Amino acid sequence: MHRWTKKILLFNPNTTRAMTDRMVAVAAKVADQATELIPLTASHGVTYIANHADLARASEVVLETLPLHQAGIDATVIAAFGDPGLIAARGRFKRPVVGMAEAAMLTACMLGKRFSIISFTPAYVAMFGDLVALYRLDGRFAGVRVPDVGFSSVVNVQDELEDVLVALALKAVQDDGADVIIPGGAPLAGLSTRIAGRVPVPIVDPISAAVCQAETLVRLRGSDRRGEVA
Amino acid sequence: MHRWTKKILLFNPNTTRAMTDRMVAVAAKVADQATELIPLTASHGVTYIANHADLARASEVVLETLPLHQAGIDATVIAAFGDPGLIAARGRFKRPVVGMAEAAMLTACMLGKRFSIISFTPAYVAMFGDLVALYRLDGRFAGVRVPDVGFSSVVNVQDELEDVLVALALKAVQDDGADVIIPGGAPLAGLSTRIAGRVPVPIVDPISAAVCQAETLVRLRGSDRRGEVA
Amino acid sequence: MHRWTKKILLFNPNTTRAMTDRMVAVAAKVADQATELIPLTASHGVTYIANHADLARASEVVLETLPLHQAGIDATVIAAFGDPGLIAARGRFKRPVVGMAEAAMLTACMLGKRFSIISFTPAYVAMFGDLVALYRLDGRFAGVRVPDVGFSSVVNVQDELEDVLVALALKAVQDDGADVIIPGGAPLAGLSTRIAGRVPVPIVDPISAAVCQAETLVRLRGSDRRGEVA
Amino acid sequence: MHRWTKKILLFNPNTTRAMTDRMVAVAAKVADQATELIPLTASHGVTYIANHADLARASEVVLETLPLHQAGIDATVIAAFGDPGLIAARGRFKRPVVGMAEAAMLTACMLGKRFSIISFTPAYVAMFGDLVALYRLDGRFAGVRVPDVGFSSVVNVQDELEDVLVALALKAVQDDGADVIIPGGAPLAGLSTRIAGRVPVPIVDPISAAVCQAETLVRLRGSDRRGEVA
Amino acid sequence: MHRWTKKILLFNPNTTRAMTDRMVAVAAKVADQATELIPLTASHGVTYIANHADLARASEVVLETLPLHQAGIDATVIAAFGDPGLIAARGRFKRPVVGMAEAAMLTACMLGKRFSIISFTPAYVAMFGDLVALYRLDGRFAGVRVPDVGFSSVVNVQDELEDVLVALALKAVQDDGADVIIPGGAPLAGLSTRIAGRVPVPIVDPISAAVCQAETLVRLRGSDRRGEVA
Amino acid sequence: MHRWTKKILLFNPNTTRAMTDRMVAVAAKVADQATELIPLTASHGVTYIANHADLARASEVVLETLPLHQAGIDATVIAAFGDPGLIAARGRFKRPVVGMAEAAMLTACMLGKRFSIISFTPAYVAMFGDLVALYRLDGRFAGVRVPDVGFSSVVNVQDELEDVLVALALKAVQDDGADVIIPGGAPLAGLSTRIAGRVPVPIVDPISAAVCQAETLVRLRGSDRRGEVA
Repeated sequence: MHRWTKKILLFNPNTTRAMTDRMVAVAAKVADQATELIPLTASHGVTYIANHADLARASEVVLETLPLHQAGIDATVIAAFGDPGLIAARGRFKRPVVGMAEAAMLTACMLGKRFSIISFTPAYVAMFGDLVALYRLDGRFAGVRVPDVGFSSVVNVQDELEDVLVALALKAVQDDGADVIIPGGAPLAGLSTRIAGRVPVPIVDPISAAVCQAETLVRLRGSDRRGEVA
Repeated sequence: MHRWTKKILLFNPNTTRAMTDRMVAVAAKVADQATELIPLTASHGVTYIANHADLARASEVVLETLPLHQAGIDATVIAAFGDPGLIAARGRFKRPVVGMAEAAMLTACMLGKRFSIISFTPAYVAMFGDLVALYRLDGRFAGVRVPDVGFSSVVNVQDELEDVLVALALKAVQDDGADVIIPGGAPLAGLSTRIAGRVPVPIVDPISAAVCQAETLVRLRGSDRRGEVA
Repeated sequence: MHRWTKKILLFNPNTTRAMTDRMVAVAAKVADQATELIPLTASHGVTYIANHADLARASEVVLETLPLHQAGIDATVIAAFGDPGLIAARGRFKRPVVGMAEAAMLTACMLGKRFSIISFTPAYVAMFGDLVALYRLDGRFAGVRVPDVGFSSVVNVQDELEDVLVALALKAVQDDGADVIIPGGAPLAGLSTRIAGRVPVPIVDPISAAVCQAETLVRLRGSDRRGEVA
Repeated sequence: MHRWTKKILLFNPNTTRAMTDRMVAVAAKVADQATELIPLTASHGVTYIANHADLARASEVVLETLPLHQAGIDATVIAAFGDPGLIAARGRFKRPVVGMAEAAMLTACMLGKRFSIISFTPAYVAMFGDLVALYRLDGRFAGVRVPDVGFSSVVNVQDELEDVLVALALKAVQDDGADVIIPGGAPLAGLSTRIAGRVPVPIVDPISAAVCQAETLVRLRGSDRRGEVA
Repeated sequence: MHRWTKKILLFNPNTTRAMTDRMVAVAAKVADQATELIPLTASHGVTYIANHADLARASEVVLETLPLHQAGIDATVIAAFGDPGLIAARGRFKRPVVGMAEAAMLTACMLGKRFSIISFTPAYVAMFGDLVALYRLDGRFAGVRVPDVGFSSVVNVQDELEDVLVALALKAVQDDGADVIIPGGAPLAGLSTRIAGRVPVPIVDPISAAVCQAETLVRLRGSDRRGEVA
Repeated sequence: MHRWTKKILLFNPNTTRAMTDRMVAVAAKVADQATELIPLTASHGVTYIANHADLARASEVVLETLPLHQAGIDATVIAAFGDPGLIAARGRFKRPVVGMAEAAMLTACMLGKRFSIISFTPAYVAMFGDLVALYRLDGRFAGVRVPDVGFSSVVNVQDELEDVLVALALKAVQDDGADVIIPGGAPLAGLSTRIAGRVPVPIVDPISAAVCQAETLVRLRGSDRRGEVA
């Protein structure tokens, strides 16, 4: 078996460092012991992605920032659920680039037939629906559910809305036919562990899924590289 | 980080033990060091899956055999590219069950936009196309390409047809618009390493992808289980 | 016009003979007078298909049994709504093989725009959805509806749940936009006649549809065969 | 078994009586002996449907003519491959109405995975593609192939172009992945019998399929009607 | 800039002249000042299109009438929401032909992600759904909503049902996820202006959209024609 | 008829002013005489969009720039074929925002059944395919064709590659079944006029289509605004 340390850059394209810290803490619980997670928070841009415009801004930050931090990196995780700059970055770098939303959706496809996304703001309904269209996963998608109610702070939104989010997950299962739930949005990182006992279907934590998928792509590529050498 | 050993049952639903051995050897190169691969070869059924009928037979063998080997297992990989019994097994067990074809296709979706499958016998064209339909991945699928020529032994088919398979991969890229290649069929396990230098796009080795995906699902679930306890 | 007797094997891949008898009785009412229905009940396997695992088991039984009973047969009907082994059997035999679900769905397409399936157990929702995906009929499909309530015996389920099933059919019409109803599952054979007066849209009886479609394929092929000779 | 004579109106919405006669002759070979085919040729309209405009004209003729001939009829076949007026007629009459194209396509779905249509004039490519879209059968469709060469008479086109049509069928199988062929257009009625020996996959004769499907719908409905009475 | 007067034939394929007059009045408010709208009402056929059969009748009228009125015309608008004869007419004439429904749907696609159609009679649900399928716009379609209540006169239906139609639009937005509304049916021409203040998303007036789109096609073609000459 | 001057901001999100000038010159030929085109070239960003990364950069520029130039504007055209920032901008402004690619595709849908895009660099194949997926127009899309050969200057690429582009258009028509051609990419603005005589199907000039569609949305909205006031 391979034993080298895999360095995975976890880049939060928003400027909220508390969010980066939380995501690293959550992802570290599932990462391979041979993985080193290298956190990086955007030095400029938006504090969090609230809409399509922020997403474009964050894409730009991703594409400005990543090239400066590729040295010695085995793979990159773009740690925001809208996958800003993912396709552009993937086209630019040889090493794997993974998006939180894409990784969560594809992982969900191995756990059930149709996934639903739950989140905390109506602006995400169209944004996440666009991602599903772009990834051509409509056939596996049972919709996005968001609350009617607002929240006071995006950093604490998963505490504040926990019961509401559980109720949305249950509605997605019962009314929309979902058999896997994805909590969408970096502020919900780690929520799956908290609410797993209250939801009858698997819940995929996006940052955890993204880090595991990055590890997978590194290992598969590693095998390829040996092939190139031999 | 988590450190417990993850036991992954790698069940070859065909009776050809040489195939199991090869797949374990290939997968071991990419598996996590904390993973123990437990190989198991079907005690009865077909020597390899040549058509839809063999696939049904292998599905039955999968569903007869797996329940007898779940004790102490963290996840199961069904090690045949037709994913025999996958959906049924997934519905029956709480622990993750991964199929080689599904895992390869979903992994391919993180490396490019459209994957093609190359394989060695015309009987697989419809069979693999059915899997794509079942997984509703038509939007990411650029087709199956198989050779016009026959082969003498399924065990050595990847040696015998190596040049032909490379040519098919190149045709898939140039004529069908594929940007990822999946060599489909257990007898092609490990081929990706051999031909990576001759094909200009990523090649996904299905058994390697399946084992990595099984590890991912175990880790994500582990995190869930802690949630259930807390 | 052609007058030779057409022999249609009606194979129930479950071991419940009472179900075979009921299906033959229902189908005989619509069969051509020149058709001889030859009933056959599985000698082993499951008593009825309750889930994906049973479906795989039944597929195997289909593929073991059919080859032993093809002598003198003009066509085969696989008399279980999950169509176990259908595609495999079709690939193996020159003579037509018809599945109850596929025949019912395609027949429904000539009576309306979107069909719904009503059935009696939640396990069938995903199973029938998979069939629709496999046959690529999503564009004509308005969903599966099953009851919240249980039942005491699968043999009598259509008596026991008649009112519930009518209510589901009405909901499928009013809420899901179905304009044709298919009662899915061998235990519902003949239900369409009982409830036709209470449902405002056509109801397709699957075993009746399957036998008629088998006759059609035999006749069309008959004409082909003359062509081959001439 | 049911024994009453089923009267099926076979309405050619074009004014070419020779075409009606040929279709009745072809269909009679496959029809149930208890079926009486009642031929009817349009009294006005176009001599044959050459394009979308003729199709609209023929639709109008269908909807003017059918109501005058429903007395004593059990089902109606609209005997032109563009299915003029089919959906409108189906919405207007309680008794089944069957279209040649729709019946052929749905029948083909029981014989293979993807059907191709071969025909004799480029104007049909878009017209038949529209029908496939309308019936939402794109997932089962491998395309339309028509010759580059012209022909002298639509009545004899199947004789004149027989070799060309066989070549198109072979191309559809080899290049487009079709595993069932439908000769599209009333002037090709009966062609399947002539060329079956030269094409390696099943060929569905549309008028034969339509008459058999009309019989099927009558029988299924017959059973329903007893239900309504009882 | 180009300054020549563009003559657009606005053909109402129904015989109700009051409807033609209303549509011309509505369209004149948005038309280019260099556009001359030439109204034409069907001399025969149906008073309004109530179902698929009327649609076929109107198609025929369109194809009989348009060729007699093409002299000096730059483009034609078929002024009925079912787009009778649109594809046939487009295939027959070199100059642009625009349909009200198609133009409204494509225009709606520039204002939002998913459009819903509201209308006044249940017969339109299937008819409009067929158009969406034919134009392959299912991915942008959130459904048709029609009232449960009847109405006394099609000419005044938009006055009579105004509140009901607003309620349907709101339901389409809230329950079906529509972000653009299309009032479907010539009798609703101009409704958008009346109810815009009561509906929170854009409303596309079909006859206005159709006339603007006809102007667009004329201008684009004009540019082409200069190209041909130069 | 309405007579007020409509001000349309034509924003080139690249920094190449020569491209802005060309697009304005091309669009002016088709614009309404009551339209005032207000050209604006990006003050920063990329010189032209060569790949997904440039597209993200341009999106950001669009979202930074447009808000500063909305005063007195009736609609905005984003004058780059990748539609950078389109969905985000549309969500942010009340006044219509039109993208060149989207406008060209939707306009093409009124001229034929399936459009192909021809362009000048392989990097655009995936980029334009993504747009088609995002707009869910796959059912109307016949693919992208680009040359094998390079070019010396993006500003003169339409002169340099004219014959190659015509050949691609012909191939799209003959091999891919396209019946409308869209030259994709701002550097091809105006090409349609040059090559119209050499291509047998309509060619849609994207900047011309975008300006006309912007005018249409302004007029339709104008009518809405009157409604709001009344």
